[in-house]
Amino acid sequence: MDARRPPTAAGKVMAILDAFAPGDVRLTLSEICRRACLPPSTGHRLVGELTAGGFLERTPDDGTYRIGTRLWRIGSRAPAVSGLRELALPHMEDLYEATHDNVQLAVLGDGRALFVERLRGRRSVPVVTRVGSDLPLHATGAGKVLLAHAPADVREAVLAAPLTRHTGSTLTDPDELRRDLAAVRRRGYATTRDEMTVGASSVGVPVRDRDGTVVAALSLVARTRGADPRRLLPPLATAARALSRDLAAHWHADGDITPPLPPDAD
Amino acid sequence: MDARRPPTAAGKVMAILDAFAPGDVRLTLSEICRRACLPPSTGHRLVGELTAGGFLERTPDDGTYRIGTRLWRIGSRAPAVSGLRELALPHMEDLYEATHDNVQLAVLGDGRALFVERLRGRRSVPVVTRVGSDLPLHATGAGKVLLAHAPADVREAVLAAPLTRHTGSTLTDPDELRRDLAAVRRRGYATTRDEMTVGASSVGVPVRDRDGTVVAALSLVARTRGADPRRLLPPLATAARALSRDLAAHWHADGDITPPLPPDAD
Repeated sequence: MDARRPPTAAGKVMAILDAFAPGDVRLTLSEICRRACLPPSTGHRLVGELTAGGFLERTPDDGTYRIGTRLWRIGSRAPAVSGLRELALPHMEDLYEATHDNVQLAVLGDGRALFVERLRGRRSVPVVTRVGSDLPLHATGAGKVLLAHAPADVREAVLAAPLTRHTGSTLTDPDELRRDLAAVRRRGYATTRDEMTVGASSVGVPVRDRDGTVVAALSLVARTRGADPRRLLPPLATAARALSRDLAAHWHADGDITPPLPPDAD
Repeated sequence: MDARRPPTAAGKVMAILDAFAPGDVRLTLSEICRRACLPPSTGHRLVGELTAGGFLERTPDDGTYRIGTRLWRIGSRAPAVSGLRELALPHMEDLYEATHDNVQLAVLGDGRALFVERLRGRRSVPVVTRVGSDLPLHATGAGKVLLAHAPADVREAVLAAPLTRHTGSTLTDPDELRRDLAAVRRRGYATTRDEMTVGASSVGVPVRDRDGTVVAALSLVARTRGADPRRLLPPLATAARALSRDLAAHWHADGDITPPLPPDAD
């Protein structure tokens, strides 16, 4: 959708909701209108309707708007995410118990690593990759895995675009990154060392579906000082293989899980 | 919003997305139109626009529609949920490690217990409360806590409506439930025993903000045979108090967390 010129009513509604996509917790009405390229009158009317419907919420004290719980709830039903998350969580819990580092699960989304679940290693390096946030593919362990196994056109598009330097260690030379990605495919895992944030390093491995296609990346993020792949890789690779087996048995590319889940239990 | 007669363009869009709220993974175009009370022509056009924008996704094999990853991502930014989840997760992880039972966090939503996060006890009773799903207040441990501390009008509305019997043990008599809720307030915790699902029992405790207002419920769900409150309550109450302290220090009713979170780290 071209958010700069919403073509239709649905386009305008999507443009308003997209205004929050960058991750801003709250926006003023004028900021929403500016980002959605809507005249104030139109924006005011649509935002009012979305607020009445619970898709947006108005902050009492300052009148700013934020994404509403109702929208969160509808979005949480996205099967491509919820099915994968559902099958991955137990393996991520095991990995957390084994390492107490940050455990993250990411998928490829709009040329970025989109984090669909993560457990936080409280006694590890502080990481605030939040569910729903995305990070660059070239500077994160999970991202390198996704990029290494992405369709060639996606990979080349990322390599052709400017590679943002996040730290002095970020790989910003396309050829150097291309060699690193080849090593990721060869070795079966990716590593970063202070490449996204100084002091944080990671190891990432692919998660495959029944066809062997890489559908996600599982990663551990630890303090650089303790982030030895020789320590992190064995449990990580073990959990990724176990998850891949579960995906092969229960997961469909369209996000459905079979057998269908039993009814909710208290 | 009155989904039976979408008043406006935004209302129609919300009605289409609301069609997925009951938790259906995928719907046909005609099912969406039926639920959204839209003529096929209008529904077809709007669904097409929402699909083009990534808010909906079309299943390749059968042409049904499902919630798109883009909508999931925007929804995941709902601060009322994400802020609470962010602060709760470390405490839920501790509780999981201490008990290996199902750890759940719920808030009050539309007269139901809305589950915003949960960790799965693999070696415990199978529970598929999924993030974003809701369960009845009167038959779940977390729900009883939320109901016991809900505004009187909300509580009376739930007590006045028919109380669904999920098992032979579900409390369906309003007076009996009212007495149980009074005990929940007096004791500081709620219990269920086979009331939602035979074989599963739970203990729930309140999570309070800095004003002492109950803003969420933390619960453990275990096999009825092993669900002894004397075992489950101490770690649960400890984690809930620790989370309440974090909320008092860092959480605002509008969902913001202070101090602001540091930038994303790999």
